[in-house]
Amino acid sequence: MAMKRAAGSSAIRSLFSSTFFRNLHVSGEKKKIVGVFYKGNEYAKLNPDFVGCVEGALGIRQWLESQGHQYIVTDDKAGSDSELERNLSDAHVIISTPFHPAYVTAERIKKAKNLELLLTAGIGSDHIDLKAAAAAGITVAEVTGSNVVSVAEDELMRILILIRNFLPGYHQAVNGEWNVAGIAYRAYDLEGKTVGTVGAGRIGKLLLQRLKPFNCNLLYFDRIRMDPGLEKEIGAKFEEDLDAMLPKCDVIVINTPLTEQTRGLFDKDKISKCKKGVLIVNNARGAIMDTQAVADACSNGHVAGYSGDVWFPQPAPKDHPWRYMPNHAMTPHVSGTTIDAQLRYAAGVKDMLDRHFRGEDFPEQNYIVKEGQLASQYR
Amino acid sequence: MAMKRAAGSSAIRSLFSSTFFRNLHVSGEKKKIVGVFYKGNEYAKLNPDFVGCVEGALGIRQWLESQGHQYIVTDDKAGSDSELERNLSDAHVIISTPFHPAYVTAERIKKAKNLELLLTAGIGSDHIDLKAAAAAGITVAEVTGSNVVSVAEDELMRILILIRNFLPGYHQAVNGEWNVAGIAYRAYDLEGKTVGTVGAGRIGKLLLQRLKPFNCNLLYFDRIRMDPGLEKEIGAKFEEDLDAMLPKCDVIVINTPLTEQTRGLFDKDKISKCKKGVLIVNNARGAIMDTQAVADACSNGHVAGYSGDVWFPQPAPKDHPWRYMPNHAMTPHVSGTTIDAQLRYAAGVKDMLDRHFRGEDFPEQNYIVKEGQLASQYR
Repeated sequence: MAMKRAAGSSAIRSLFSSTFFRNLHVSGEKKKIVGVFYKGNEYAKLNPDFVGCVEGALGIRQWLESQGHQYIVTDDKAGSDSELERNLSDAHVIISTPFHPAYVTAERIKKAKNLELLLTAGIGSDHIDLKAAAAAGITVAEVTGSNVVSVAEDELMRILILIRNFLPGYHQAVNGEWNVAGIAYRAYDLEGKTVGTVGAGRIGKLLLQRLKPFNCNLLYFDRIRMDPGLEKEIGAKFEEDLDAMLPKCDVIVINTPLTEQTRGLFDKDKISKCKKGVLIVNNARGAIMDTQAVADACSNGHVAGYSGDVWFPQPAPKDHPWRYMPNHAMTPHVSGTTIDAQLRYAAGVKDMLDRHFRGEDFPEQNYIVKEGQLASQYR
Repeated sequence: MAMKRAAGSSAIRSLFSSTFFRNLHVSGEKKKIVGVFYKGNEYAKLNPDFVGCVEGALGIRQWLESQGHQYIVTDDKAGSDSELERNLSDAHVIISTPFHPAYVTAERIKKAKNLELLLTAGIGSDHIDLKAAAAAGITVAEVTGSNVVSVAEDELMRILILIRNFLPGYHQAVNGEWNVAGIAYRAYDLEGKTVGTVGAGRIGKLLLQRLKPFNCNLLYFDRIRMDPGLEKEIGAKFEEDLDAMLPKCDVIVINTPLTEQTRGLFDKDKISKCKKGVLIVNNARGAIMDTQAVADACSNGHVAGYSGDVWFPQPAPKDHPWRYMPNHAMTPHVSGTTIDAQLRYAAGVKDMLDRHFRGEDFPEQNYIVKEGQLASQYR
């Protein structure tokens, strides 16, 4: 059952969800916008460009309030007593971020009677129940492209950290040790190795472009083959069967969104198809991996190194096994929230809010749910 | 005063050093070869390709001994009681490596009456007193090119680690923490930043080539400008004045050999010419930097991050200030001793020994001291 609830109007219920949308609103209305970001705390004041935290509030508070809109910003997102939950019932817009995901469940969507628009400050809207949002006539949009470069750069860094065995050397440096053998016996050049990306969307392509001068053997698995010109320019070979690609790869990089098809894709069975000693980099989503299967494969050496900035759930609990498994190079979810990325996605959110207030469409590639339909990558 | 001491012959002294060389020898003679490498210890047996350690002995023991040569391999290199010192007097060839440098001083060269050839397994022969070697008619040669790719890859890794602020995130992961703000407030993309290399020889050029897809503003300072075609292909701008380049750079990479001109080049004054918040990567030689000036600049924030694998001296003592300064990403000297690099420089050493035994010349680019003359980069 879908609900058309133009802002300020009472809910009109309809069985024909795809024809009624909450963002059919009257231009000029005062909106309530709720932003859920990570707290900056003592770091908030250290950099004037640090707009991605609660205190920075995407740098749009003055702009919103000068137009009479209400702007609530919080990091308090979990549980029924959270500030997010307390502001759900009359919020028109929720801005959330993958780095500190406010899980927008079907239940929350039901409570948020006025909700018209869910904006992701960044890329990746799997923390939102997209089907429920679609059914409720809510528009979901991301700042497509805002952090693709950031994530691709970060992936290349992680590949190098793993293959060159950086961390044992760093630990020696800070611990007063010097044992070159303890690093070198399993340090390799990237040159000449086979690197396969699972998914070659925008981030995957940017990674492949950055890998090109390293003279690797580049492979990609995706649903759709690139056009031959681009494929040739990028220098990567198309693999139509994932299970056929995996055993060829020295390094596997996950660059696919989290969907019903990819959730838990890398389980014990899939990992066993990878080459012994494989390195895996995953900045996509933690839930694409079976958490315990990854930890076990790192412990028994089948996976020689694992690095990424995504976990399930987030924040990762203190006892998440990936924190303690051998040969990992994990960090919290940060690759897409560099200062450069923050400035880009803050500008993108501002632009979409502005268009929303004016009743204008967003750039087409930003839509994740539009008029009840999910974007192709989430179907 | 130079000495021509063909192996097995008594020393013939001559005032005309440039015309007499110790490597004028009789083909087929049995030689004593001393190799000084780092010990593999418990790591030696973990990888059959780990040839760069004492136990691996460059994989040439059987080949040497089957020809009747004597091959002593040790890591014991310091002091007059060391195994190196005990074998100096009758050694014909010493193979050393920058990763565990056997300092071949003028005094040691004097003691080594039979010495004909000093081979560096790797690149960088500044642990050898090259003038003393030249004066004594000893040939010095490296395996030029054997680890340039390894070092360039490693430099790009270190640039990314610093600019993306990887290590604070890693520390959070292993310490059970989750504080995205504490990483993100000083994490940046590499894209769009200005990266300058001090020196654009083989490693510098390989780094610039790998940086190209990152869409940076690339600068290089060197004695000689690249030819216009190569410069255009690499996409870097020539800077003829180092002091004019430094304040433009967000990232500075040191890619120049250690010579009398570059020793201590980056002192307090030179560092003060860099942009506040500069990141510095140095895989060239530790002694190019003033150790304390770097530590001070990291402490006061003028340098926002410093990473490299070279120190002075090596091994770095437990109390070396670079181990404990803020925002560093240091490791022991490993970038040029990946397994791939070891296999390349082991093959290069074997090839030069073979040529030496046959009385043949080496590939021209391998010579550091030939017929009493230093290679141009060491002049």
